[in-house]
Amino acid sequence: MSTQPGPRYVVGVDFGTLSGRALVVRVSDGAELASAVCEYPHGVIDTLLPGTGRRLPRDWALQVPADYLTVLRTAVPRAVRAAKIDPADVIGIGTDFTACTMVPTLADGTPLCELPRFAHEPHAYVKLWKHHAAQRHADRINALAAERNEPWLGRYGGLISSEWEFAKGLQLLEEAPEAYAAMDRWVEAADWIVWQLTGTYIRNACTAGYKGILQDGRYPDEEFLAALNPDFRDFVRDKLDQRIGELGAAAGRLTARAARWTGLPEATVVAVGNVDAHVTAAAAQAVEPGQLVAIMGTSTCHVMSGDRLVEVPGMCGVVDGGIVAGLPGYEAGQSGVGDMFGWFVANQVPPAYVADARTQGISVHEYLTNLAARDPVGAHGLVALDWWSGNRSVLVDHELSGLLIGLDLTTRPEEIYRALLESTAFGTRVIVETFARAGVPVREFIVAGGLPKNRFLMQIYSDVLNLPLSTVVSEQGPALGSAIHAAVAAGAYPDVPTAAAAMGGRVVESYRPITANVMAYQRLYDIYRELHDQFGRGGTDAMRRLKAIRRETTA
Amino acid sequence: MSTQPGPRYVVGVDFGTLSGRALVVRVSDGAELASAVCEYPHGVIDTLLPGTGRRLPRDWALQVPADYLTVLRTAVPRAVRAAKIDPADVIGIGTDFTACTMVPTLADGTPLCELPRFAHEPHAYVKLWKHHAAQRHADRINALAAERNEPWLGRYGGLISSEWEFAKGLQLLEEAPEAYAAMDRWVEAADWIVWQLTGTYIRNACTAGYKGILQDGRYPDEEFLAALNPDFRDFVRDKLDQRIGELGAAAGRLTARAARWTGLPEATVVAVGNVDAHVTAAAAQAVEPGQLVAIMGTSTCHVMSGDRLVEVPGMCGVVDGGIVAGLPGYEAGQSGVGDMFGWFVANQVPPAYVADARTQGISVHEYLTNLAARDPVGAHGLVALDWWSGNRSVLVDHELSGLLIGLDLTTRPEEIYRALLESTAFGTRVIVETFARAGVPVREFIVAGGLPKNRFLMQIYSDVLNLPLSTVVSEQGPALGSAIHAAVAAGAYPDVPTAAAAMGGRVVESYRPITANVMAYQRLYDIYRELHDQFGRGGTDAMRRLKAIRRETTA
Repeated sequence: MSTQPGPRYVVGVDFGTLSGRALVVRVSDGAELASAVCEYPHGVIDTLLPGTGRRLPRDWALQVPADYLTVLRTAVPRAVRAAKIDPADVIGIGTDFTACTMVPTLADGTPLCELPRFAHEPHAYVKLWKHHAAQRHADRINALAAERNEPWLGRYGGLISSEWEFAKGLQLLEEAPEAYAAMDRWVEAADWIVWQLTGTYIRNACTAGYKGILQDGRYPDEEFLAALNPDFRDFVRDKLDQRIGELGAAAGRLTARAARWTGLPEATVVAVGNVDAHVTAAAAQAVEPGQLVAIMGTSTCHVMSGDRLVEVPGMCGVVDGGIVAGLPGYEAGQSGVGDMFGWFVANQVPPAYVADARTQGISVHEYLTNLAARDPVGAHGLVALDWWSGNRSVLVDHELSGLLIGLDLTTRPEEIYRALLESTAFGTRVIVETFARAGVPVREFIVAGGLPKNRFLMQIYSDVLNLPLSTVVSEQGPALGSAIHAAVAAGAYPDVPTAAAAMGGRVVESYRPITANVMAYQRLYDIYRELHDQFGRGGTDAMRRLKAIRRETTA
Repeated sequence: MSTQPGPRYVVGVDFGTLSGRALVVRVSDGAELASAVCEYPHGVIDTLLPGTGRRLPRDWALQVPADYLTVLRTAVPRAVRAAKIDPADVIGIGTDFTACTMVPTLADGTPLCELPRFAHEPHAYVKLWKHHAAQRHADRINALAAERNEPWLGRYGGLISSEWEFAKGLQLLEEAPEAYAAMDRWVEAADWIVWQLTGTYIRNACTAGYKGILQDGRYPDEEFLAALNPDFRDFVRDKLDQRIGELGAAAGRLTARAARWTGLPEATVVAVGNVDAHVTAAAAQAVEPGQLVAIMGTSTCHVMSGDRLVEVPGMCGVVDGGIVAGLPGYEAGQSGVGDMFGWFVANQVPPAYVADARTQGISVHEYLTNLAARDPVGAHGLVALDWWSGNRSVLVDHELSGLLIGLDLTTRPEEIYRALLESTAFGTRVIVETFARAGVPVREFIVAGGLPKNRFLMQIYSDVLNLPLSTVVSEQGPALGSAIHAAVAAGAYPDVPTAAAAMGGRVVESYRPITANVMAYQRLYDIYRELHDQFGRGGTDAMRRLKAIRRETTA
């Protein structure tokens, strides 16, 4: 490195749920020079299919793949210009994506939805991570896998999610067999974007493991797939299997076309694809076993490397090298967090509150937080189950739904809002306790993402977990994490831990638990835990029945 | 009667939670000539004691007795003037009141709160029916009565309510012993108002039975009372016992002072006191066994005479002659109904909805109802437990609280509003089923009060109950019911059923169940019923624990 004159740079591109963000980072120390954001023109498609009058069922969530290319064409060059650097000094580009987000394509990577014959077929579009319409397919996969004692099932905590590659793929086969037949490849968007950049399709080890059931070099076998549906027998061989790339490895270099899009040299190295949550561990310098990073936004993803591979009930999964090459990587998640708070603000806050917030020049979130923070712990007498978007860990059930208990005629909106904040902390505590019981304890809890801006929320988490919280220095953790992976792919550092030490950063013990609160929250958590098991572990199937009634009624 | 020249009139006065209403009615046919309303100057006192800075704890609800006299002085003469009749043609006045609403008085009827030495003592004021701060006293009464196998306990479904005379009285003794010692009489407001009109204290059979534990001519004995608290031994003898008046009997005639207040002749006969719900049965012509009248407003009260006296678990009570002299009268209730809908509108409706409703020139209630009515049954995927104000029947527990299940990120405000409407219908169905199981089936379901204006709500009730609904013709059921009792007291009719046949009225089968809805609601009701038993019958005490946490936190 030292032979190279002048500073060199990498670009990290974070593909989120609603937008993509490009960040220009100095290789030597991780300094963030500039960033640019591009909203996806079509956003999340969950009601009407664009250009058609076609209405989507509830639980659907699609995207348009061309939107992702718009990010490469606009946000990347804008960020490079804003950084006032010479594009020739950019040695690498790394990307991260939401997952499991799936693109059905032809053999050359063309998305099916771009073919005129499939423009009206919802199944030809990208199925976003939060597409939750394949729960019945996931149920069948889980029942059959349990019946057959499939060896891979334990790696996923005993349950495959409806969000993942096999459930979404089976739904596609059974609901749109023509589209399924025309589909040559069933590609993670994380890999599709790298394919667009390099011209080569390489499947990243992270999503192949966590979302694609690739364990110890093997996928579920053909006999299993055929038992789900005879036409699903060749799913792995025909649609899924592909050369695997390790995290931090190079996938290739920019094609001439991608160089034009981004304004970067064709020599620029492109890192293997990655996931927004997993890449953030590097930005947080959380590459040692027991360092858990919670990436908190609309949903929360928890990633933690371990010093040994164990099976943790109800986790999203454990994948060898899934976060840091060489270590087993654990993933857990909460499907709805910021989304729940946003739902409340959009739907459940009366005019006087909204007007007051405007007068004070603060957001409704801040306004509710300020009101709620005045009361002692438990004064609202409320507990919520944080399942507005189902439960990803440790119950792995998207048929679960939100619950509120303790309401009375004196209950105020800010009290319910606070109960929602608290419920997500309780959900996190269940995950932390489950890791501990399985023998892979959380040694440090690190927060990243957008929600840590809310200091009251962070104190709730510290009090509920009875743990100090560390915070990531960067406000753009995923994009920085992608940049770190780009630096490793380009050969600037020997591995991700070394690059993270130089380019990442975190503040240890930004929050410490307050003893009195810890004890008070314990009593609320006891009730949360009881309801969690009652509604989530078979005490009653009321939530599943309500979802079924709704589905039948609106069918 | 036929010897009397010209038409004659009666006045019914309905004392509600927030106001009193006087109605002038023609004796011959029940024609309603005019009415007038008087809001209570002090309304419901539930935060600050008037004229003092004293803050009341949560769950308290007081009133000022002088407010009731204001109704006699203003609403009665205004109604008579508006009716353009000669006051000399008024032969009787009848009253009805909320219950159990208790006035602590001296021997001459002077309320304790009117004595300067007690003006700052909250316990010297009227305890309104919805004063819920005596639950712990009710718990002790219930535990002791169960332990001692008290014969009267079964008449109240096995549980005495915190709203009633003994629980409120015990709270008074233990929290304000000086006021208790100074109190000569512990008087139902229903009887206190008649005492003010006639100068004579007569205790009506209805509240003495339902709220005062008078069964088969006996109250709970001194040994029982002493076991609750030695100083409570003489509660019945010293404070409570009084000559009983049958419903529809004459309590006396107006005093000179009361004649001046009301502008009516001193010869005017005054009927024995009565309760707002019970008196409505006469207005609805619901005087036969099996005719249940639901008086639906902020709360709902159900009254029904039976052809035999049985003990119905969880009912407010059965009292011989409690609704119609000579028949056992059953009472049940739901503590929060319209109150819950009002809470939702005040606290949980976003600005855009409120603005839209204003643009359309309709109330937010109507706006939400219109939106909710578009969806098929069950499309919201929600169930609520209607316990925002606790549960009066059949669980008799004011430590219970509201619950919502099935929420997700697509849930809209009108869907939750509809779930609240439906939950109150489910609560009613539990009551109807409990009557049937006990051998006193509901043969006709008649609705009265303010809520039947909402036609969508009424159809929900008909569908959930799978019963036709009859509606009361009068929009002022309680005041008309009081007028009917006044006509009987004045001798214009031999008994209440005869008077009701001439003066009351109802429309049979105003609503009929829609078969498809009946079946769809059955599935939601199954879930309601399961949650009802889980949270209300000891499956979990989570709601009680939350109330306890809140009480301790805010103490």
